[in-house]
Amino acid sequence: MTAPVPVAMSATLAADEEFARRRLAGERVLFLATGEIGLPVLPELGEQLARAAHRNAYGPVAGTAQLREAAAGYWGRRGLVTDAADVVCGPGSKPLLFALLMAVGGDVVVPVPSWVSYAAHARLAGLRPIPVPIRPGQGGVPDPAGLRAQVLEARAHGRNPRAVIVTLPDNPTGTIAGPETVRELAQVARELDLVVISDEIYGDLVFTAGHRAVSPAWFAPERTVVTTGLTKNLAVGGWRLGVARLPAGAAGSALRARLVSIASQIWSSAAAPVQAAAAYALAEPPEVLDRVAASRRLHERVARKVAEVFVAAGAELAPVQATCYLYPDFEPLRHGLSRVHGVNGADDLARLLSTRYGVALLPGTAFGEGGRSLRIRAATSRLYGESDAERSAALAARDPLALPWIKAAVDRATEVLTDLTAPIRSAR
Amino acid sequence: MTAPVPVAMSATLAADEEFARRRLAGERVLFLATGEIGLPVLPELGEQLARAAHRNAYGPVAGTAQLREAAAGYWGRRGLVTDAADVVCGPGSKPLLFALLMAVGGDVVVPVPSWVSYAAHARLAGLRPIPVPIRPGQGGVPDPAGLRAQVLEARAHGRNPRAVIVTLPDNPTGTIAGPETVRELAQVARELDLVVISDEIYGDLVFTAGHRAVSPAWFAPERTVVTTGLTKNLAVGGWRLGVARLPAGAAGSALRARLVSIASQIWSSAAAPVQAAAAYALAEPPEVLDRVAASRRLHERVARKVAEVFVAAGAELAPVQATCYLYPDFEPLRHGLSRVHGVNGADDLARLLSTRYGVALLPGTAFGEGGRSLRIRAATSRLYGESDAERSAALAARDPLALPWIKAAVDRATEVLTDLTAPIRSAR
Repeated sequence: MTAPVPVAMSATLAADEEFARRRLAGERVLFLATGEIGLPVLPELGEQLARAAHRNAYGPVAGTAQLREAAAGYWGRRGLVTDAADVVCGPGSKPLLFALLMAVGGDVVVPVPSWVSYAAHARLAGLRPIPVPIRPGQGGVPDPAGLRAQVLEARAHGRNPRAVIVTLPDNPTGTIAGPETVRELAQVARELDLVVISDEIYGDLVFTAGHRAVSPAWFAPERTVVTTGLTKNLAVGGWRLGVARLPAGAAGSALRARLVSIASQIWSSAAAPVQAAAAYALAEPPEVLDRVAASRRLHERVARKVAEVFVAAGAELAPVQATCYLYPDFEPLRHGLSRVHGVNGADDLARLLSTRYGVALLPGTAFGEGGRSLRIRAATSRLYGESDAERSAALAARDPLALPWIKAAVDRATEVLTDLTAPIRSAR
Repeated sequence: MTAPVPVAMSATLAADEEFARRRLAGERVLFLATGEIGLPVLPELGEQLARAAHRNAYGPVAGTAQLREAAAGYWGRRGLVTDAADVVCGPGSKPLLFALLMAVGGDVVVPVPSWVSYAAHARLAGLRPIPVPIRPGQGGVPDPAGLRAQVLEARAHGRNPRAVIVTLPDNPTGTIAGPETVRELAQVARELDLVVISDEIYGDLVFTAGHRAVSPAWFAPERTVVTTGLTKNLAVGGWRLGVARLPAGAAGSALRARLVSIASQIWSSAAAPVQAAAAYALAEPPEVLDRVAASRRLHERVARKVAEVFVAAGAELAPVQATCYLYPDFEPLRHGLSRVHGVNGADDLARLLSTRYGVALLPGTAFGEGGRSLRIRAATSRLYGESDAERSAALAARDPLALPWIKAAVDRATEVLTDLTAPIRSAR
């Protein structure tokens, strides 16, 4: 007897839509709930899309040769030599990740915490997500020892885990798992014959060159699929374009063929004009590199500043190394939060911040944390301005924190967190 | 124990890619395999896309308000009064159809023959497609009596059929089920509490106004979902844009909420610049209506001419009323095809036409027919020219059949079918 699949609306997209409604209603909201990048389209990139408006054919399911070659070059410049034949394009890395899980076809280990959609993808595909906590500060990579233990236990119970997802750099923690953790992960994946799906969409948003994420494709090239897109580095999430790099070799080819078959049935191809613009972007001409660098600097300034605000309020926070996310833990304030505010978990905390203060962010439960955890995720990428003019000014500013609208947001965050935690801290 | 889902590459997209390879290799191929519309983008529509290149936000999962209002107007002008709140947009009607099956969450009755992806969608979603043959000439709608019998039998065996898909007008037969058949279908769906998913993507390509397809939404509005897009009427399949019209009322709202949740997890939204262009198109300004009318006339002339060629060769063919498809049945020539060519089914026939004559079309097996059937599908929408200049000339021509490249294609089809069938017919 078949039954509807269990599914909930994407927590981030639901938050986006709620924010739009509240703003329309005239409410003042400090929106830290989702990582949509609030920056304008690079003009040269927009021109490429406009010039490709006449492209109306589906083209190959895996994407045009031009796009796949550009993607291969993009990875090659990052030390992952890639054959264009091993690249598959899709309308966002999100559908690619979903289809990859279907193509692999077994249960999948997901880090805790991790992005809202991995576990949902597994359930939609009729698979079981197996949660494995990260090591502290090693966001996006399940603790390799925990991975081994959970996979062996699942197999002992007759389940068939076949993949592990990692996020490098990480959403929601804004950290980057170190090379040693990644190497161990890759080793365990090889030992247990798991496919590694490495979501590297934040790869270009690492603040310090020395911290660059090391892909598991370095350590287990025969079994690692890497995905990325233009959503984060170039702020064109609404264009819907992702690319996947499949492993070379026989197993990789077989997986690629399955992925392309599934893609052919679910979405046919990514929008042809967008593919043309993406080929331009992934070739990384100077103006694209400049834009990515400018947005990276902006993310760093604002994310680190807001991180300071949370730390000053008494939350614990692993140093933010990339992305536009912070993942503060209010555990040190647990007793006071409970006593003063009746807050006993992240859901309570997020609700209080939203209703009392108009501050929107997501509770750790959205990322797979247990209900008692006091971790929340704050995204700072929507603070850059309301208009394209403000956003362009934020990109160009030597000191974006001095811009009135960004300063106002940071001040408001400070005010709210002070109001929330001062009574707790003074009573300690 | 989980296992990879069964899936094969979309037969039409696979044929497209094979055709591209054969052409690159310099081979002369008469390509009748897929219904991609070989016509240029309407310039004003391309301009709308170009003007929307700055749109980089996801926007609502269901699509922008502007697009949903335009779609509501589109359906309203066709007698289906629609609230914009009941519209859901996606990157093609294909992903919408897949997600709808997931959202309904039960086994699904599909017509035989029917479009290559319905049954594949069901299997990908972990559901069982239940094939029910059409009545002769009533393409796209499972025989209502067969529908009732099959659903009752499936339920008696503990299965849970919950939906039926119809295609109006029909791919692959190019026919339109009559209002009486549609009414009966809707009645049985109501009696058995099935959701009707009505794929109406060819709705604007009906040759004679008097033949307009009647939607099951007329007869069972509370349970009918209608889908369409810009792929067929405006030839922008490669832009990937579809819309679904969910039923008004509580059940419809619940289904819509599930559809939007699934969409939020699988694809987030359709490309924002494409949504803006689609809003323009679905508002149907005069130049859009003119273009659709011109392409409809072109499809009619060419499809009917090629249909004549198949009939002259001895195949049986229901009169083509819409789309750019013919579905000739070589049953009258079965004995000779077997004796002279060793052809005993549509797969054999399609293979012979491809290898001996360079004529690409799809066997009925791709549409769910049994292996012994001698039905094949020919699509004529790729005969309009190789260049945009030729294709524009085809659109503008008073007599497109007189254009040298279209005449050559028709002559080649005649020559091939004569060569194939003359020895058979002369020996009878």
